[in-house]
Amino acid sequence: MTEPALDGLIDALRRLPGVGVKSAQRLAFHLLQHDRDGARRLATALNDAVQRMRHCQRCHTFTEAEVCSTCLDPRRDARLLCVVETPADQAALERSGSYKGLYFVLMGRISPLDGLGADDIGAARLLERAVEGGVEEVILATGFTAEGEVTAHALATALKARGIKVTRLARGVPAGSELEYVDLGTIAHAMGDRR
Amino acid sequence: MTEPALDGLIDALRRLPGVGVKSAQRLAFHLLQHDRDGARRLATALNDAVQRMRHCQRCHTFTEAEVCSTCLDPRRDARLLCVVETPADQAALERSGSYKGLYFVLMGRISPLDGLGADDIGAARLLERAVEGGVEEVILATGFTAEGEVTAHALATALKARGIKVTRLARGVPAGSELEYVDLGTIAHAMGDRR
Repeated sequence: MTEPALDGLIDALRRLPGVGVKSAQRLAFHLLQHDRDGARRLATALNDAVQRMRHCQRCHTFTEAEVCSTCLDPRRDARLLCVVETPADQAALERSGSYKGLYFVLMGRISPLDGLGADDIGAARLLERAVEGGVEEVILATGFTAEGEVTAHALATALKARGIKVTRLARGVPAGSELEYVDLGTIAHAMGDRR
Repeated sequence: MTEPALDGLIDALRRLPGVGVKSAQRLAFHLLQHDRDGARRLATALNDAVQRMRHCQRCHTFTEAEVCSTCLDPRRDARLLCVVETPADQAALERSGSYKGLYFVLMGRISPLDGLGADDIGAARLLERAVEGGVEEVILATGFTAEGEVTAHALATALKARGIKVTRLARGVPAGSELEYVDLGTIAHAMGDRR
């Protein structure tokens, strides 16, 4: 049973993050057996997205236009610039409804183990963007992981050296949690930042 | 942030089994950010597979030809017909190197909860195939799950009524396992079928 078209599909599916050979096989068989229409739609959607999605020239998020609708929205507060690791993080912040400023989307985070430094994540472009007229505060919303913290620290140092006001999302106890089950570092931070 | 091409890709990915909205988003962002070439290859592979893969007219497995290479292989023992639920199960049996006969691939298994009866999985075609000249034994290799057992039972009844010899894969203790951790039903079966 060597079928090039089937093997090609399994190989292409395996290349997705988190998909091993077994899952790729299962997905391929599922699509061919039960959802050929879904397979065709996925192929079209992939081609469409690759062809049409590019990066916003101002904030670097994904968009089909030169500049994304958020950057062009006159109701957004242009004095605030929130820095996130990915478009997914940006989407989460938008869903929270807690932020009405503009964004700058990094290309990931600094990760020495993966050989990713400040240059690789677009830090230079952030520094250019932050000194453009109008930005009064840069909010660092990279993740609260080791790599996210390193990224925030490096960016904060560079931004402050240019005289820009820098803040960081608050650390603390997440909503809905019982103290008993919250990790000690988080409790210590929440205590230190109590208000 | 509503981008039709991006939303379309996320929707199409969500349709894959086991992929929720979060995973679909992560996959879409990954492909657009880090692997546009992989996205293009996947689109091509999907279209190729949908266009070229069909079912073997004899055993119903996936193939690009009218009749698959296994069915056409003169070295396979045409007196044995092994019935499996899916092409993936067939592939596992082939990898085991323990079987040199022919196959019949069902379209899944009988599952009353999903409204799938004997007709939906191609039982009628199996019965036709089994009475074609040459088949001396039908080996039921459906899964050892509740649904796989129901399927095996229904098929065995119908096949035996036509005077066909029917066997079932042996149940027993899997290789590499310690008895302590094997479930009791399996131990009881292994004891009953001891040899």
